[in-house]
Order: sequence, then structure tokens, then C-alpha cells
Amino acid sequence: MKRIGVADTTFARVDMARFAVDRLKASGTGFRIERTTVPGIKDLPVACRKLFRERSVDLCLALGMPGKAEYDKTCAHEASLGLILTGVLEAKPIVECFVFEGEADGPRALERLAQRRAEEHAENAYSLLYHPERLARHAGEGLRQGFEDAGPVRRR
Amino acid sequence: MKRIGVADTTFARVDMARFAVDRLKASGTGFRIERTTVPGIKDLPVACRKLFRERSVDLCLALGMPGKAEYDKTCAHEASLGLILTGVLEAKPIVECFVFEGEADGPRALERLAQRRAEEHAENAYSLLYHPERLARHAGEGLRQGFEDAGPVRRR
Amino acid sequence: MKRIGVADTTFARVDMARFAVDRLKASGTGFRIERTTVPGIKDLPVACRKLFRERSVDLCLALGMPGKAEYDKTCAHEASLGLILTGVLEAKPIVECFVFEGEADGPRALERLAQRRAEEHAENAYSLLYHPERLARHAGEGLRQGFEDAGPVRRR
Amino acid sequence: MKRIGVADTTFARVDMARFAVDRLKASGTGFRIERTTVPGIKDLPVACRKLFRERSVDLCLALGMPGKAEYDKTCAHEASLGLILTGVLEAKPIVECFVFEGEADGPRALERLAQRRAEEHAENAYSLLYHPERLARHAGEGLRQGFEDAGPVRRR
Amino acid sequence: MKRIGVADTTFARVDMARFAVDRLKASGTGFRIERTTVPGIKDLPVACRKLFRERSVDLCLALGMPGKAEYDKTCAHEASLGLILTGVLEAKPIVECFVFEGEADGPRALERLAQRRAEEHAENAYSLLYHPERLARHAGEGLRQGFEDAGPVRRR
Repeated sequence: MKRIGVADTTFARVDMARFAVDRLKASGTGFRIERTTVPGIKDLPVACRKLFRERSVDLCLALGMPGKAEYDKTCAHEASLGLILTGVLEAKPIVECFVFEGEADGPRALERLAQRRAEEHAENAYSLLYHPERLARHAGEGLRQGFEDAGPVRRR
Repeated sequence: MKRIGVADTTFARVDMARFAVDRLKASGTGFRIERTTVPGIKDLPVACRKLFRERSVDLCLALGMPGKAEYDKTCAHEASLGLILTGVLEAKPIVECFVFEGEADGPRALERLAQRRAEEHAENAYSLLYHPERLARHAGEGLRQGFEDAGPVRRR
Repeated sequence: MKRIGVADTTFARVDMARFAVDRLKASGTGFRIERTTVPGIKDLPVACRKLFRERSVDLCLALGMPGKAEYDKTCAHEASLGLILTGVLEAKPIVECFVFEGEADGPRALERLAQRRAEEHAENAYSLLYHPERLARHAGEGLRQGFEDAGPVRRR
Repeated sequence: MKRIGVADTTFARVDMARFAVDRLKASGTGFRIERTTVPGIKDLPVACRKLFRERSVDLCLALGMPGKAEYDKTCAHEASLGLILTGVLEAKPIVECFVFEGEADGPRALERLAQRRAEEHAENAYSLLYHPERLARHAGEGLRQGFEDAGPVRRR
Repeated sequence: MKRIGVADTTFARVDMARFAVDRLKASGTGFRIERTTVPGIKDLPVACRKLFRERSVDLCLALGMPGKAEYDKTCAHEASLGLILTGVLEAKPIVECFVFEGEADGPRALERLAQRRAEEHAENAYSLLYHPERLARHAGEGLRQGFEDAGPVRRR
């Protein structure tokens, strides 16, 4: 049985992990979810490292919501680099799902965006583990998570 | 018995570690605190590495106060990347508690901010080690350290 | 028999890998291509790491198409650093082939650019593995991938 | 007997290492100084790595003087990240002592700043190795190297 | 017999390696040069890693010429970080010799700059391996590669 790690934060203003877990469970069976919550996005790399090491997960989904300030962008950049480092050291995928507070106007739109992005990244995580051919089928098709797909430059 | 490392700097203009240690001690028992002080925030990654290696701590709290200049932001960025690297290599949490001098107007406000942030990060550190379920309970609730919580986008 | 890894994304809006694989096959024989597709460019470092580890490739071609927003540049920067880290840890080449959406005006020009760059990087990948002397012969000659060569500063 | 590594550059316009070594010798005995000089600050991380590996130093003092151009700041940033990486991998302190040419007006002021900062960082290095309690005593007191101390936000 | 690795690119618009190799050969004997050419500067870190691992070089000279665009600066930054990482992991020096196209006005000036910088960095490489005392003698003297030396702040 495979294990999927889900790491999120108390800093985020939407419970994105709930949406992700629901979508994971709707996607299939045969895996166990290992949850962990840390204060902020900069804690996510270690959280994932621990999920890989201590709870033997095969993939991590790392969810976070950086604020609107310039400094929040720096934190997100640092967190992303740490997540990439962790994934490379473990040779296992970490699906980063970040929603910036400034990406949506107003609380409702922000929540909808966060829900949709979390769900679509959860689907990506599921595909990476169980159906890599699904991703291969959409190579170069301009898929987006949370927003409408951009689509391929030229329709085939 | 667990060990909590506390690393701070002579550069900081508030003795944040004192507030953090007081709050840690008020949070519970059953751990030992290992202290170390280095000149500046860029020395914190090695300080934590040594606390993990030589004094067997289970978690580090890294406290610092970058100045107001543009260069101080660069130093904080470098320090943060080093702290993330160290945490990932050790697979153990480092709770970063930085207060930028420019975040508050005047000495009193700065001290209050530094105290409150140090205390709230100390609580986070304690929860990470002993009560991870406390953090999980607040996932996605927009918690902040030092300032008022932003709260969740939509009240449940 | 050597193995060449080809990693691309569902985010890209042109199926660059197809062009790269066609050019690789036209360049010679004696190798096997191992394909993988991930959601976005930030997933490419782990994708390459896995190709090296699990499918024993000798070189990776990593293809991606960052969007036009400022944030996309940050993501590309993070992805590039992760690819370099992976290549250094594995001591094996990763040929990065990124096309920024803003590099070309209009869909046709973007597709042409993506095709040509993918093909020329595929040739570079082939040369790195089988004909390093071809690259040596063009040292300092101002070669470009996707656009006209800049050429050497002074014709010899 | 402990060993202190001192690494500097031919790029710097002040012989900062001389000031640092003099101050180290005035601080105490019982250590040996291992010197090395490299071309520029980006060579300092490897220089320190070699001092740790080949000459068994317990701590490095890395001295450099980035120029005034924007690019020099990038180089300093890269050097700093490399020094932090090296310190973390070795789990040994590297005291970075950089003086930016633009920090002082005119040659005399620049030399005085470089001298004073080198001396004060040398004292820090000595304290880190032999008297960590001296640093602990000044935690949060706003110490600076090269300039007047900022002092604590509130006098105790 | 020592070995010196020389890595350059097809992207550069001047054959800097030729100048570097000529100067190395003029500097002394007792070493063997190992050459490799890669497409661009971002390929240099892996190229050096391979020279260290597969061809047992004691030092690498990495030559490149980033273009004039803002993106080229980002690439140079990434390449530099990768070169520092590689040098630190190998504990062996990598002498980076980059010439930015925008540093000189016109092709002739650019070629002269590239030649001179390559030659002077080749001398530095030779000194690092065979005559470290030469570098030590010029510590803090404001040496530059490619341009006139800035000189020490105060003549001794």
C-alpha cells in the first residue's frame, strides 16, 4: 500500500488540505494519507523530509498560502527551494500547491481558487503515483491548476 | 527527555531568547534547553547544525533581528535558506523567529512585537515536539506570530 | 546501450518533447529514450533525479515553458537551480530547454521557437553523449538555440 | 591545540587579514593560524572547505571586500550562500567579514572601517572558539562590527 | 602530475579557453590539461563535476560569456551558485571566468577584455595549484582580472 504525505500550515487562511484529501480519496483507493501541519510555508520542507523519513510516504503534497507582502514572496521562494532540495535528496515527488493571497479578489474568490487548486494538485499527485500516463497524455497542453487551462498554443 | 535548542544573536536589539525560554518553560516540562549565541543571523544555520550534532537537540528555535537596510534583507534571505538546508539535512524542525527592525514604529512597539513573536514561536516549537495535533487543529486558520491572527478567509 | 531521459510538463503550451524526441531519433541510434511528464517546471528536478535513479539514464533533457508573469520567472529560477543541483549530485548532464511564453509574439512564432529550441537542444544532448568533439569544435562561436546564432565576436 | 583558518582575497583593497590576525594573537594563545589567499570572494567557500579538510581548522574567518557595482552585490550573495553551505556541511563556524566598498566615503574611512570590522570579527571568532559565554552575555544587545553598536532597544 | 580542467561553452562569442590554455602552458609545466565544451554556462557546474570525477582534475577553470539580457544575468547567477556548490562538494577550486557581453563596447574591446581576463584567471589557477604564496603576497591589493587593478586603498 502506498502512502501519500499531506503537509499544510496554520498560516494559510483556507483549509486547503481538506479539499486535497477529499479529492485524493475520490480519486482511488489503495493508499494511506499521512497528515502533518506546521506553522508556515518555510516549515514545509522539513515537514516533508520527516514524512518521507519517519512515515515512509511515497509522495508529498505541500500546501501553503503566502500573504500579500513583498516579504511573503521571499518566504515562498525560500520554501520552494527547500521543497525542491528535499524532493531531489529523497528522489521522490513533492507536489507544491501554493496560493498567494493576492491572486484573488475577495475572500470568496480566494477560497474558490484555493479549493480548486488544491483539488487539481491532488489529482496530479494521484496521477504521479498511479497513472503517470495520464500526465504524459497531456504533455504540452497548457494545463493550469486553480484557473482555466491556458490550452495548447495550437489546437491539434 | 527531549532537548530544545535555542540560538540567538548579539546583533539583535531585543533579548528575544529570554522571552522564548520563559514561554517554553511555562508550556510544559520534560525537556532540557540548550542555548547558544552567535554574532549574527548568518551564523544561525551553523549554530543549529552544531546544536543538533553536538548537543543532540530535537528541535531548534532560531531567533534574529535583521536591520532596516536593503542589505539586511539579503542577509535574512541567506540565513533563512541556510536554516532550511540545515533542517532538511537533519530532518528536524528549525523554528525561525525573525523580527525585522522596520516592522514596528519605535522601540517600545519593536520590543513588544519581538516579545510576542518569540513567545508565539516558542509555543509553536513546543507544539511541534509534544502536541502536533494542536497545530493540525488550526490548519488553514490564518494564525500569525507577533501580530493579530489574520483568521480564516471564511468563518466556519 | 545508452539511455536518454526526456522530462516535460503538462503546463507547457507546446509539445516540445515530441520535437526533441524526433530530432534525437534522427541524430543517431544506439540509445533508448525514457519519457516522463510532470505538472510543471518545478517538478522537473525530481523527475530527472528519478530518471537517473530508477531508469538509469545517462543524460536528461528537461523541457518546460514558463508563463509570462513575474512569478513564472521565479519558478523558472527555482527549477533551474534544482536542475543544476540534480545534475551536480548525479554528475550527469541535464540539458535544460526552457522557452518563456513572452519570448515570441503570437502562437505561431512561439511554436516555431519552441520547436527549434527543442530540436537544437536535442542535438546538443546527443553531442554531449556521443560526440563531445562537435561541441568542442564550436567553443566560443556564439551558438544559440531557437534563435539565429550570435556568432563569434570576430570571424576567424 | 585549536586551529583557526583565515581566508582572504587579492581582490580586496585593504589587507584585512593582517588586522584580524593581529587581533586574534592579542586575544589569547593556544591556537595556530592557517592562512590562505584566493582571488575573489566567490573562491572563499572552497578555500574554507579546504582549510577544514586539509588543515583541520576548527573555525574559519573569511574576509572579503566586494566592489561598488550591482554585480558585486550578486557575487557577495553567492559567496555568502557558499560560506553558509560550507559551514553547515562541516558543522563548523565560518565568520564572514565582508566590507562593501560603498560602505565608507573615501579611502581612509574605508580602511578604518575594514580594520575595525576585521578586528571585531576576529574577536567574535575567538569568543566562538574559547569563550561562547561572552557572546551569550551580549545576546540581544545590538552589537555591530565596524560601526558603533546599535545597542539594545531599551536599556536594562 | 597534476591535472587542470578547462570547461567552456559554445554560447560564448570569444574562444576564451584558447587564451587560458596558452597562458597556462606559458606559466609552467608538470600538469596536463583536460578540456570539455558544453552548450552554455548553466552546463558548467556538471561539466566541472565530471572533470573532477571522471578525469581526476585538481582544479577547474570555468569560462563563459553571458549575454546582455536581464535573463542572462539570472543564468549567470545560477551557474555561479552551481559552480560554488560543485567546488565545495569536491573541496577543489573552480576558477570562474565570466565575461558579460555588456561589459565592453564593441567587438574588439570585448575580445580584448575576454582574452585578458581569461589569461589572468589562468594565472590565478596556476598560482592556486603551484604557488599559493604568490596570491598571499597580493592579499588585499585590489587585483582585478581583465581590467586595470584597482590597487590597495592606501599605498604601502
